[in-house]
Amino acid sequence: MRAIDVIRKKRDGHELSRADIEFLVRGYTVGEIPDYQVSAWLMAALIRGLNRSETAALTEAMLHSGEVLDLSDFPQPKIDKHSTGGVGDKTSLVLAPVGAAAGLIVPMISGRGLGHTGGTLDKLESIPGFQVGLPVARFREILRACGCCMIGQTAEIAPADKKLYALRDVTGTVESPFLICASIMSKKLAEGIDGLVLDVKTGSGAFMKTEEDAAFLAELMVETGERMGKKVVALLTDMDQPLGFNIGNSLEIEEVLTVLRGQGPEDLRELCKELAAWMLILGRRCDDTASARVLYDELIQSGSALAKFSQMIQLQGGDPTLVEDPAVLPRTKRSIEVRSSMSGYVGAIQCESVGTACVLLGGGRQKKEDAVDPAVGIILHKKVSDRVAAGDALCTIHYNDDSRMAAAKNILQQSFSIGDSMPAPRKLIHRVIKK
Amino acid sequence: MRAIDVIRKKRDGHELSRADIEFLVRGYTVGEIPDYQVSAWLMAALIRGLNRSETAALTEAMLHSGEVLDLSDFPQPKIDKHSTGGVGDKTSLVLAPVGAAAGLIVPMISGRGLGHTGGTLDKLESIPGFQVGLPVARFREILRACGCCMIGQTAEIAPADKKLYALRDVTGTVESPFLICASIMSKKLAEGIDGLVLDVKTGSGAFMKTEEDAAFLAELMVETGERMGKKVVALLTDMDQPLGFNIGNSLEIEEVLTVLRGQGPEDLRELCKELAAWMLILGRRCDDTASARVLYDELIQSGSALAKFSQMIQLQGGDPTLVEDPAVLPRTKRSIEVRSSMSGYVGAIQCESVGTACVLLGGGRQKKEDAVDPAVGIILHKKVSDRVAAGDALCTIHYNDDSRMAAAKNILQQSFSIGDSMPAPRKLIHRVIKK
Repeated sequence: MRAIDVIRKKRDGHELSRADIEFLVRGYTVGEIPDYQVSAWLMAALIRGLNRSETAALTEAMLHSGEVLDLSDFPQPKIDKHSTGGVGDKTSLVLAPVGAAAGLIVPMISGRGLGHTGGTLDKLESIPGFQVGLPVARFREILRACGCCMIGQTAEIAPADKKLYALRDVTGTVESPFLICASIMSKKLAEGIDGLVLDVKTGSGAFMKTEEDAAFLAELMVETGERMGKKVVALLTDMDQPLGFNIGNSLEIEEVLTVLRGQGPEDLRELCKELAAWMLILGRRCDDTASARVLYDELIQSGSALAKFSQMIQLQGGDPTLVEDPAVLPRTKRSIEVRSSMSGYVGAIQCESVGTACVLLGGGRQKKEDAVDPAVGIILHKKVSDRVAAGDALCTIHYNDDSRMAAAKNILQQSFSIGDSMPAPRKLIHRVIKK
Repeated sequence: MRAIDVIRKKRDGHELSRADIEFLVRGYTVGEIPDYQVSAWLMAALIRGLNRSETAALTEAMLHSGEVLDLSDFPQPKIDKHSTGGVGDKTSLVLAPVGAAAGLIVPMISGRGLGHTGGTLDKLESIPGFQVGLPVARFREILRACGCCMIGQTAEIAPADKKLYALRDVTGTVESPFLICASIMSKKLAEGIDGLVLDVKTGSGAFMKTEEDAAFLAELMVETGERMGKKVVALLTDMDQPLGFNIGNSLEIEEVLTVLRGQGPEDLRELCKELAAWMLILGRRCDDTASARVLYDELIQSGSALAKFSQMIQLQGGDPTLVEDPAVLPRTKRSIEVRSSMSGYVGAIQCESVGTACVLLGGGRQKKEDAVDPAVGIILHKKVSDRVAAGDALCTIHYNDDSRMAAAKNILQQSFSIGDSMPAPRKLIHRVIKK
């Protein structure tokens, strides 16, 4: 078999065999097939598309390019949740302790911020002392002790994805639902889970701007997971404005604590409850969403979810006093409000722009090697449909550097559309997709 | 401007600007844009296609990636001919001296064998002493003295094409009419010519198997050349069986000598005459094909074309006694005939297979670094529509190595189809394409 024949086959729109795909992924992972051949193949795959068998074969080849965790010695159901990325999306930090408090094992391997979106690892690292780079043996120990553990991708897990993702990023081959599906699912299935709840975002702050594209990706991932014997449910959820009020690493941790206390913004609480409900159903803790929502409320009200969060922080080297005193989190020296110049209703918030403003403050990376400032961020005071008077604060910028603040403020001033009438409400959960 | 934005634009089917294309070609030529980005772009360009403006911009960017010969100090018309490659196609070796004998300047920069097809440089190098690697200054001197000179591509001419071609070869991006057009035309227009006759082959021995594909490429090249102010005519010609009788480097030189003497195979003589006629018209030596054919016949019958060939060989370091005594050419030690097992008519000759048989004998390269054996080859005794009796020789293999001969013989025995009825004749010249 030769790489060029596999490239030509996809170029001409023919179906690749499992052997073709395995040959390509294995050859690339071990360095026998060069970047320039794989990038030509990726472009052909993006334009011609992959069918369901090819997508499953690609996912499986990438999954088996590295270590697959075997958690079969845990008697509990192993359930994870994954989001396609958004702005202000801190649900993972609520869901891992909720799942663990319900008796599930939540072996969560997360990522860093990408583009305008935040990353779970960056948020966790704003907790003083918190370690995300743990070896697999320690990961297992913490899962056994606590039921949940949140770490970064290791070099052993899906190395093909690591290499392919870096290549896609510089060759214009990121935006393919087939390649996105294989990338996400290969990493998630390497966690040794039984079930997965997918939060596929749609709207101005999501990578998939239209509901149609988001639904296509969601169905693809559900199908691919089911083909590999896993229970998978996808929720299509709204990312047309930031989720919750707080955007920025330590600010988001603060908001997570309010949700774990049964308070916090309504949209964030609702989404956490719905995603948790499906985790509880996949993990056979509940039979339907109604009873699962009741169980979620109990885990929050009893304080057992918050206690799990505290336990996990301690086991991962972080400062557990955080739970009592959020002041241990890094704070910026300065803050400034962005005010409305007119009265009316908030018609829309340019969600991607708000995410970009946070990156510009230093809350994310413009280049891979940039350091992240854990303290900076934005607190929204108004969300879509809120009434605003001229002079009202729309949001507060928390910053450490004047020129970065100026750049962020400039964007944020453009991010709010104020109109005369209240906009039609958008649903937070657009659809539930399952087999 | 960033390479990834140019890649994405073509990926999504949008038209690239001249600036986009110049940025990409220049960046790649100087090494600022890596292989893996260009291969992704090439695949997008192959699948999405390029329009006429993009094709012209690509050709021009590649042309200006290196030196463009300035032959404006020659008062004569500068006319060249280019073929897309075939089996037994030795017309260039006839046309260069014919053009020079008619008072044209023929600055011919040729290539080597590619795949199953022969290359003009390999044929010339079978002439003892003949030098194809001359510096540009010497090329000009010989053109001034003789009117024609035949050399290989220099490092200075269209370096972008050299780099792009090597990348296309290993990334499945050769088979695009747009990229083929830019590759051919950028090199040919770098010769400083006024006019170009294109011989676009179609049939089983051509790269473009169907007449439709060949016509598309031909029209694209004519249009691209005209956009750059050159007079271009394309002849769509038959390559469904080898051209002439002789295939192999020194065997083809021998056949060229017969044509320059007014003898030789009918198809080869006819094609030389038609291609020459268009060179004479583009070079304003004649007003129409009828008078151009008469002039061609005169140049042959008078011996002036043969004299030019002899002069060019001498100026390029070759042994001019060849013209009187072809025995100075390398000959094989052995030969063997391939005989027909049945009687009937030759219905078809698998042209690509005959070319491949010659490569296997050592007459071409299987790998880039292979040495070529100038003496080996095949002489056909029967061509399509010829009557054959069982036991008749179909062709003779000239070889130096028994195992290579066995491989070639095996292919050649399968290459002739013998049937009961005479096949419908195929035209040699399918179409003339010009603006």
